[in-house]
Amino acid sequence: MPAPDAPADFVQSLARGLAVIRAFDAEHPALSLSGVARRAGIPAAAARRFLRTLESLGYVRADGREFALTPRVLELGYGYLSALSLPEAMQPHLERLSAEVGESVSAAVLDGADVVYIARVPTRRIMSVSITLGTRFPATATSMGRVLLAALPDAELDAVLAASELAPLTPQTLVDPARLRRRIAEVRERGWELIDGELEAGLRSVAVPVRGRDGRVAAALNVSTSATRETRDGLRDRILPLAQGAAAAIETDLRLL
Amino acid sequence: MPAPDAPADFVQSLARGLAVIRAFDAEHPALSLSGVARRAGIPAAAARRFLRTLESLGYVRADGREFALTPRVLELGYGYLSALSLPEAMQPHLERLSAEVGESVSAAVLDGADVVYIARVPTRRIMSVSITLGTRFPATATSMGRVLLAALPDAELDAVLAASELAPLTPQTLVDPARLRRRIAEVRERGWELIDGELEAGLRSVAVPVRGRDGRVAAALNVSTSATRETRDGLRDRILPLAQGAAAAIETDLRLL
Repeated sequence: MPAPDAPADFVQSLARGLAVIRAFDAEHPALSLSGVARRAGIPAAAARRFLRTLESLGYVRADGREFALTPRVLELGYGYLSALSLPEAMQPHLERLSAEVGESVSAAVLDGADVVYIARVPTRRIMSVSITLGTRFPATATSMGRVLLAALPDAELDAVLAASELAPLTPQTLVDPARLRRRIAEVRERGWELIDGELEAGLRSVAVPVRGRDGRVAAALNVSTSATRETRDGLRDRILPLAQGAAAAIETDLRLL
Repeated sequence: MPAPDAPADFVQSLARGLAVIRAFDAEHPALSLSGVARRAGIPAAAARRFLRTLESLGYVRADGREFALTPRVLELGYGYLSALSLPEAMQPHLERLSAEVGESVSAAVLDGADVVYIARVPTRRIMSVSITLGTRFPATATSMGRVLLAALPDAELDAVLAASELAPLTPQTLVDPARLRRRIAEVRERGWELIDGELEAGLRSVAVPVRGRDGRVAAALNVSTSATRETRDGLRDRILPLAQGAAAAIETDLRLL
């Protein structure tokens, strides 16, 4: 389980315990002991010790032969979210933008080669998977990801692209490294990105950067819709200017904080 | 560190590693090694091993002599949230209710003696602390908490009240156990609760239960406002009926899911 570059004093019990927490998801809200062991990739005896420890700490509850997470696990992400003034500063503007355009609005930051959602105003479900705070997608295949990648210095961009899988999530996904680089250069020039069906068929979104007080891109926000509800032209001509207005309002607020 | 009722095979490394994650919060977004050790209540040598392990797993980043959480920690709460269909089903109705009343709307579930936020539509900041998903407050001092406590069978209610601290968070906080019990009995009768300044001075809120498909109370939703913006009568006569309408709409959706 330790990564190849794991430190010599790597605490395997901690890594395995966190893998037990991650074993639960939307498709596996409740798991048996053997299910946890299988999904966490650890022996059943170890899974039992970790589950009992997590249960005594209040993170897991047992219901007959099944285990499930409790709401207490949210506190593990709470420190990160509450330390970030960004989601709180963005939320009212995301709400307003969502009301103006009648579509779902999200914000994300870059973490390695992924975007991670840090704020979201859903209006209806358009993705086949449910999106919550903490949901991750490959940065290269999302409008917010390309906006965030475009803001990286060249050396960091090289490193992220080298670590990216470039999987063809749909037939439209841009997976050719040279074409992706050119696209990111275009995004850097024009300051926004529009994605059409590259992350999931029928899903269109437009994203813009949000700059922090230091002038650096701190997050991206996007408006996402389905291809049956909004044309590419509508997304660019009607929705993009409103998204840019919301980003500018957030930037003003951040400077005043 | 093991709780008094910790199992014999309690994995202390896991408990300590989670305490390191929890050491970070809004007041402590970045910590030195000694800061982590102090806040987690563990020796510095142990804190170093846990931080290096968390860093190699991508949950912590080091910046000079300081450490901070990365967005990856959100994935630890993601399994819980995405397994819960409730927040997703509630969100559009919470958005609509917030737009109707012009105030912040939240939803919470009970976890032991605390309420834990599982969904939130903020309009402006009214609490002195920031509220995110996973934020906890004592159930006895909140409108959502009293609604959730009122739904418990008597034996469970007794156990939760026995575990509650009943701290006087403001001069208004109800801390007398007998009076609190009578109040919860009233909430059980009328089906809603209105709190005025008990959690924080100047904060007023009204809460109603939301029942799942099995007819049991699955969560509570509330509308919160400041005493300077809304009277108690306005909260009860204008806002409560709209909150009850939103709860009914969510219950209808849950039955159709």
